[in-house]
Amino acid sequence: MALQRIIIENVRPRTPTNDYPAKSVSGEAVRVTADIYREGHDVLDAAVRWRGPSDKRWRLERLTDLGNDAWEATIQPSEIGLHRFVVEAWTDHFETWRQYLLRKHEAGLEIDTELEEGALLLEKYKVPAAKSKVLERAIETLRDRSLHPDDRLAPANDFDVERITDAHPYHDDLSKSATHLLRVDRQRALVGAWYELFPRSEGGLEGAIDRLPAIAKMGFDIVYLPPIHPIGKTFRKGRDNTLTAKESDPGSPWAIGSEEGGHTAIHSDLGDFSDFDRFVKEAESAGLEVAMDYALQCSPDHPWVKEHPEWFHHRPDGTIKYAENPPKRYQDIYPINFWPETGREELWQACKEILEFWIERGIRIFRVDNPHTKPFAFWEWMLSDLQDRYPDTIVLAEAFTRPKVMSKLAEVGFNQSYTYFTWRRTKQELTEYLTEIALTDKADYMRPNFWPNTPDILSDPLRGGGPGAFKMRLALAATMSPSYGIYSGYELCENEPASPDNEEYLNSEKFEIRSRVWDDPDSIAPFITKINAARRRHPALQELRNIRFQHSSNERVIAFAKRTEDPSDVVLTVVNLDPDSVHETTLWLDLNQLGLPEDEPYEAHDEITDTTFVWSGPSPYVRLEPTDPVHLLHLRRRGAVISEPFS
Amino acid sequence: MALQRIIIENVRPRTPTNDYPAKSVSGEAVRVTADIYREGHDVLDAAVRWRGPSDKRWRLERLTDLGNDAWEATIQPSEIGLHRFVVEAWTDHFETWRQYLLRKHEAGLEIDTELEEGALLLEKYKVPAAKSKVLERAIETLRDRSLHPDDRLAPANDFDVERITDAHPYHDDLSKSATHLLRVDRQRALVGAWYELFPRSEGGLEGAIDRLPAIAKMGFDIVYLPPIHPIGKTFRKGRDNTLTAKESDPGSPWAIGSEEGGHTAIHSDLGDFSDFDRFVKEAESAGLEVAMDYALQCSPDHPWVKEHPEWFHHRPDGTIKYAENPPKRYQDIYPINFWPETGREELWQACKEILEFWIERGIRIFRVDNPHTKPFAFWEWMLSDLQDRYPDTIVLAEAFTRPKVMSKLAEVGFNQSYTYFTWRRTKQELTEYLTEIALTDKADYMRPNFWPNTPDILSDPLRGGGPGAFKMRLALAATMSPSYGIYSGYELCENEPASPDNEEYLNSEKFEIRSRVWDDPDSIAPFITKINAARRRHPALQELRNIRFQHSSNERVIAFAKRTEDPSDVVLTVVNLDPDSVHETTLWLDLNQLGLPEDEPYEAHDEITDTTFVWSGPSPYVRLEPTDPVHLLHLRRRGAVISEPFS
Repeated sequence: MALQRIIIENVRPRTPTNDYPAKSVSGEAVRVTADIYREGHDVLDAAVRWRGPSDKRWRLERLTDLGNDAWEATIQPSEIGLHRFVVEAWTDHFETWRQYLLRKHEAGLEIDTELEEGALLLEKYKVPAAKSKVLERAIETLRDRSLHPDDRLAPANDFDVERITDAHPYHDDLSKSATHLLRVDRQRALVGAWYELFPRSEGGLEGAIDRLPAIAKMGFDIVYLPPIHPIGKTFRKGRDNTLTAKESDPGSPWAIGSEEGGHTAIHSDLGDFSDFDRFVKEAESAGLEVAMDYALQCSPDHPWVKEHPEWFHHRPDGTIKYAENPPKRYQDIYPINFWPETGREELWQACKEILEFWIERGIRIFRVDNPHTKPFAFWEWMLSDLQDRYPDTIVLAEAFTRPKVMSKLAEVGFNQSYTYFTWRRTKQELTEYLTEIALTDKADYMRPNFWPNTPDILSDPLRGGGPGAFKMRLALAATMSPSYGIYSGYELCENEPASPDNEEYLNSEKFEIRSRVWDDPDSIAPFITKINAARRRHPALQELRNIRFQHSSNERVIAFAKRTEDPSDVVLTVVNLDPDSVHETTLWLDLNQLGLPEDEPYEAHDEITDTTFVWSGPSPYVRLEPTDPVHLLHLRRRGAVISEPFS
Repeated sequence: MALQRIIIENVRPRTPTNDYPAKSVSGEAVRVTADIYREGHDVLDAAVRWRGPSDKRWRLERLTDLGNDAWEATIQPSEIGLHRFVVEAWTDHFETWRQYLLRKHEAGLEIDTELEEGALLLEKYKVPAAKSKVLERAIETLRDRSLHPDDRLAPANDFDVERITDAHPYHDDLSKSATHLLRVDRQRALVGAWYELFPRSEGGLEGAIDRLPAIAKMGFDIVYLPPIHPIGKTFRKGRDNTLTAKESDPGSPWAIGSEEGGHTAIHSDLGDFSDFDRFVKEAESAGLEVAMDYALQCSPDHPWVKEHPEWFHHRPDGTIKYAENPPKRYQDIYPINFWPETGREELWQACKEILEFWIERGIRIFRVDNPHTKPFAFWEWMLSDLQDRYPDTIVLAEAFTRPKVMSKLAEVGFNQSYTYFTWRRTKQELTEYLTEIALTDKADYMRPNFWPNTPDILSDPLRGGGPGAFKMRLALAATMSPSYGIYSGYELCENEPASPDNEEYLNSEKFEIRSRVWDDPDSIAPFITKINAARRRHPALQELRNIRFQHSSNERVIAFAKRTEDPSDVVLTVVNLDPDSVHETTLWLDLNQLGLPEDEPYEAHDEITDTTFVWSGPSPYVRLEPTDPVHLLHLRRRGAVISEPFS
């Protein structure tokens, strides 16, 4: 700090503590901002110097002065991996001189001294050629007082930023921010539609392969498998989490480990490694990527229990404690003690090796079970190493807990996070929540993944809800957030809760094999297909920070638009949030914000019904039935060429 | 960071960058807050450890869990100087065990294992005696299942915080924040009424002594003198800033330095050092403290110009440049070049020695002229050293410039700051501005000093305004901010601007001697006396963060209350902001917030007119003439004993 001549602070993007990398995805426009100022009134100039993992030199982007000492630039890193950036500022002696000269000249004051100073500037600072020409012109023109005040000298925009180096004498007060970090992930870390399925309900990995074409056809990008490892027999849970399992009950996939093996083994009922490899390959052929579950806990039969009893919690009598959250008891699961009295380093290493094992097997996406019950220090240590070595890895935090804990998990390295979307239902709740996660600095390090349901959570209005409710929640998730996911059965509108006050499913698939008839005529798969197709077709739906809520006169109808920066693509989503009634609303669209004409009609093409409305002005009328509660509207000027890059 | 088991972050108070001390004054309650959390569900405990300059040991204050991972404590440091504080947190194994035990017991589950664990806890962690008793009682009571679920064990509040030490085995995961700094100033740094006068207009220091009783009687705390040093003759300015001075023109006091001396000399027209010492002594006897001006610039005749020409800016021909802000020119002032090619350290040292000189002469309060044109690095270097050595020094930043620059000056060490109050006139402007400076984290490091006028600034509605306008602006300044000041002549309602578009005074006292008739029957001195007396009588008016705006139905009438934390003292200020018309309003007071009864009448005693209104309910009616635009109301329960500590 001391003797730094120019203050450069509040540099963004950053995480709250600034101790970890901010995040972007390949090709995403990253807005770099900083507060930059010094004493007095001299003119400043500034640039951001940045480099990716394989850059041999720093890249430079000039910052723009936004006024009030705020500056910004946009960079667009494409290489995946850890990038560094530094904001630099210096006094622009030339521009300071030029403005001063003009003000004096315009005031009719003597400028002989200033002209001599200009000549000295040239000499002293070896000003680049382009500036030198401007200066020479100034001197010539002003010498004989022929310059009219309106005939301003053009600002020296042609200054060569490549010449900004510490050594250059022109930058005698060059000041630098700290070095900031930006982790650039592949685009899938921001954008993707997830589909979760239990392979055992499809007859194992082999049977699940047969489901892949249908999942791909619905437009999903990722097929996510709950744990596929051997399941313990000791204290195995029966149907609906009952204490005593029948011989035929398969147990919870999260009770990991048996004599067959632990986290690096495959349950023999599901198949073997060749089946697994084939599943991954077939998924890939269908355009799907496979995500696995990473649940750091063990069944009493897990090999670690015998090999490393010191990695678990013990009772005074020396026996190992199962998981408990009184009055709930999970006798089939031993939580790991991440701070054992001995062997911590070996334990953490072993945990990391599980991920490495599956990464080497070709998996790059992991959904992490309950990360908030494991130490932040563990995640920090593991994820930073993993992401440096396998920068295409994507790790999703399944933490439904307090906001600061969820934010911290994102900060220390998780690429995506489950969210509170699952319980945000009203227009106000959704608007406030999206504003917080998409339109604040939180979006610089925390990426949402919206799940209308999970195997554990069947929340209102899905509990007992009809197809309209399922369409409504899916459309919200899929258009509000670039990443979203559903747990299979959603398309069949499975809606039976375990009990009136229990958020879990009746006949939970976590504890039993569930067979489904997929070609149900009431399936909403065709609706899901339309939504996912629109997500792929519209770049506007592949961004997070671009959501803009639009006024709707009816409190039960929410409307929000997303547009690309250009704005070549504008999509408006209008949703009836009431699963029981038809609702009408008058919208008030910010046409200027959306890049639409205020003085002529424009088209609103419904991506679900493939019909086109011609609208005029900012306040169209919309009516939505509870059974068809969504308009997904591509807004465009009339006669516009429709680009459909993904169709 | 790595392997810290408990996250402790967002610790406050702090400055924006956290690189400098936050601020409080002696005896002020300082709210220490932090976000504290760890993985899982164990119960945490936390404390702030703090110490002042002469503390031999750390003091400890327990933090309270506010929920949602936010914690707070209040400390009240009284010793002046730099304090340190660290927030510490640890897992409370005992409380974790206790809550777990109870939940299991209430669920009717077996707890033998837990009771054995309790006994081991005692042994392993050598739990202090008080806890041990709670545990023994728990074991006894629960062993025979006689505890009713409602008969909860009392939380172990009697835990001895003095036993929190790193070595104590009970704190096996003790985690600590960084060490934070808090500079505790004397109370005058927060609270004071300033009066600025030009001694030369009173006939020098001798004559100014005669003014002291009147200033003291008005209730001011500080008498502030513009520069009292010799004034240069070269290019001396004439009346109203004209270029040619007559022989009799005294020149600007800010054109510092002549053959007589520089910043450590006294202008011979004002007196000598014995007069100065007497002025300071007489002021002190009258209850006034003397503040001096610290203006780092020189007249062309300043000794430094000959001795150290390298400390100034030069033209190509080697001559020294005067100050200029085209089209304005200040030929009588040479700005200092704080980054000279040689001699920077010597220059900075010389600048610091000026302050040291006057500090050794007994002065402890300085108003710094235009600090924003001098390097932040200079202030940081100088003020940190000065405040360590003379912790009772108070330095006021006279910077009217961009917000980030003003904030930074406060952050690097200025104890007080001039503000934009001078130009905030409407209810909305005042409400927003006060909210920003008093009710955000800004108040942790930036203390406002509100000036309705200065020798340079005669702003609306004072320009051409009547006594009502002058009363209105003074009352706002004096009740909104614990520190405020006026430039003399204010009490006479001097209101003639230099020109319609110029904010300065006509016949500016900066360039001429001004004689005034103080015993003007229209003087508002009696009003000022009432206001200052109320400021002294009411502790509520001596705080910054306690302002609470109250609803007023009329947009031209502003109402705000201040109350002490107890709340033994509540003061409501109601001001008619329109200097031209009478205004009526209905207030809506938050009686609950103000600690007043909602169901019985209460008194509103007007501190200006000494009349008492009896109000009932939250919505009293108020009417204010433009000539008497202020109600300063002491709100109290009927029959309350009135404490008047200062009267």
